Amino acid sequence: MERLRRTFAAHPAPASDAGDEAHALVAAASECAAACTACADACLSEDDPAPLRSCIRSDLDCADLCAVTARLISRPGTQDPATLRTQLDACATACRACAAECEQHAERMEHCRACAEACRACAEACDRMKAAIVG
Amino acid sequence: MERLRRTFAAHPAPASDAGDEAHALVAAASECAAACTACADACLSEDDPAPLRSCIRSDLDCADLCAVTARLISRPGTQDPATLRTQLDACATACRACAAECEQHAERMEHCRACAEACRACAEACDRMKAAIVG
Amino acid sequence: MERLRRTFAAHPAPASDAGDEAHALVAAASECAAACTACADACLSEDDPAPLRSCIRSDLDCADLCAVTARLISRPGTQDPATLRTQLDACATACRACAAECEQHAERMEHCRACAEACRACAEACDRMKAAIVG
Amino acid sequence: MERLRRTFAAHPAPASDAGDEAHALVAAASECAAACTACADACLSEDDPAPLRSCIRSDLDCADLCAVTARLISRPGTQDPATLRTQLDACATACRACAAECEQHAERMEHCRACAEACRACAEACDRMKAAIVG
Repeated sequence: MERLRRTFAAHPAPASDAGDEAHALVAAASECAAACTACADACLSEDDPAPLRSCIRSDLDCADLCAVTARLISRPGTQDPATLRTQLDACATACRACAAECEQHAERMEHCRACAEACRACAEACDRMKAAIVG
Repeated sequence: MERLRRTFAAHPAPASDAGDEAHALVAAASECAAACTACADACLSEDDPAPLRSCIRSDLDCADLCAVTARLISRPGTQDPATLRTQLDACATACRACAAECEQHAERMEHCRACAEACRACAEACDRMKAAIVG
Repeated sequence: MERLRRTFAAHPAPASDAGDEAHALVAAASECAAACTACADACLSEDDPAPLRSCIRSDLDCADLCAVTARLISRPGTQDPATLRTQLDACATACRACAAECEQHAERMEHCRACAEACRACAEACDRMKAAIVG
Repeated sequence: MERLRRTFAAHPAPASDAGDEAHALVAAASECAAACTACADACLSEDDPAPLRSCIRSDLDCADLCAVTARLISRPGTQDPATLRTQLDACATACRACAAECEQHAERMEHCRACAEACRACAEACDRMKAAIVG
């Protein structure tokens, strides 16, 4: 996301110096949102989707929270740290719940395996962003 | 977006064989959504945001349409081509309007220059996806 | 949505005088987005979700397009009519596709019946908004 | 939102019996998302938007979190309470921050007054939903 990096770098008044963490989180959250959406759609296409209900639901919730987290983090000048930290917690919680769900099917379904990896990566990017805001 | 690519590749029943175009569009639209959000925030932080009103508004609309386009394209099994094509048109239209707006300020503001590039890239990815669905 | 109506009425520079149509569309699209999301979740909870795959997918696409339409229409000052009209078309198309899908199950499942009604109402509100912009 | 109420009532397996609180929250969050979006657009249209930067930013963040909260709460079968509770906290925090910001301008701008009321109402609906999940 080279153009996003340049957009961030040109911001006249960022609220923190967490530009690198922000860029990494937007990339991770955007990929996780898409992977979860695709994984839900793939689970739904399996011969019997009934046993995958919890997985599909985790995917849908996680996709929504990752998308909104990418949105918030894309505003470098935004300044309410309490909102930001709680949202990062919510996103990381959803990512870990979805990863745990998808990992149960990872042996059998590659879309769950790849999705779980995207979720773990996004949860870690949330944690790093949170540390960068606080520290 | 290597994990997204693997998720797409493992889908049991994609509606088309446009996996490469879909992957490229999700990447372009995700970056454009973030770049437009960041550009709006940067414009708002400039000393006098009043002359940048139209730019901020184009950024916000474009960010919303790119985000929803990334979402739709992330469902490989979805099958209503009329909805998809019209949405790709709406997204490409918003991207081109936003690029034209940002290009007016590109000399002076690097965030507008980078954002305009992201918009042009996303509009082209929409066009390629549309051709891949139809053809 | 009385508070939204007051917010719209106090806007210093609306791009059109379609305030009533805009308010009605935001209300219809917000309800449709939620009803489609709930209908997808309800379909997924049925004993055998496999025959409801197309319905779930239509619901998810329609929910996304209604949510983004509500967002765009909530900006009274936004001024690119080409983007707006194409987006209204995309939303109405998704609503009608989803209504047609849900109506196939409406006899048997009340969540599909109520969702189809919300889709038809939103499609009509899109049409009225489009006429108000053009005319 | 009568059709949403019927959709909720017909869900075959809700995760809790908080249907009334869920319906009220979706209505409040949908209105708040739209009112915040409209208020940001109205602030941007004022003669001098520079002093309204913080208000616009609070509006944009709050609109995003309200929209995603409406989305999550629209899935009655979803079951990860930790994610849900944290997201309700994030939304209520954003709503209160935005209300406090808008209230500073409420005397002078009716769009800020109406928006602040929508934010307070949504924050309370989040609190009631959280109590209904826990209790």
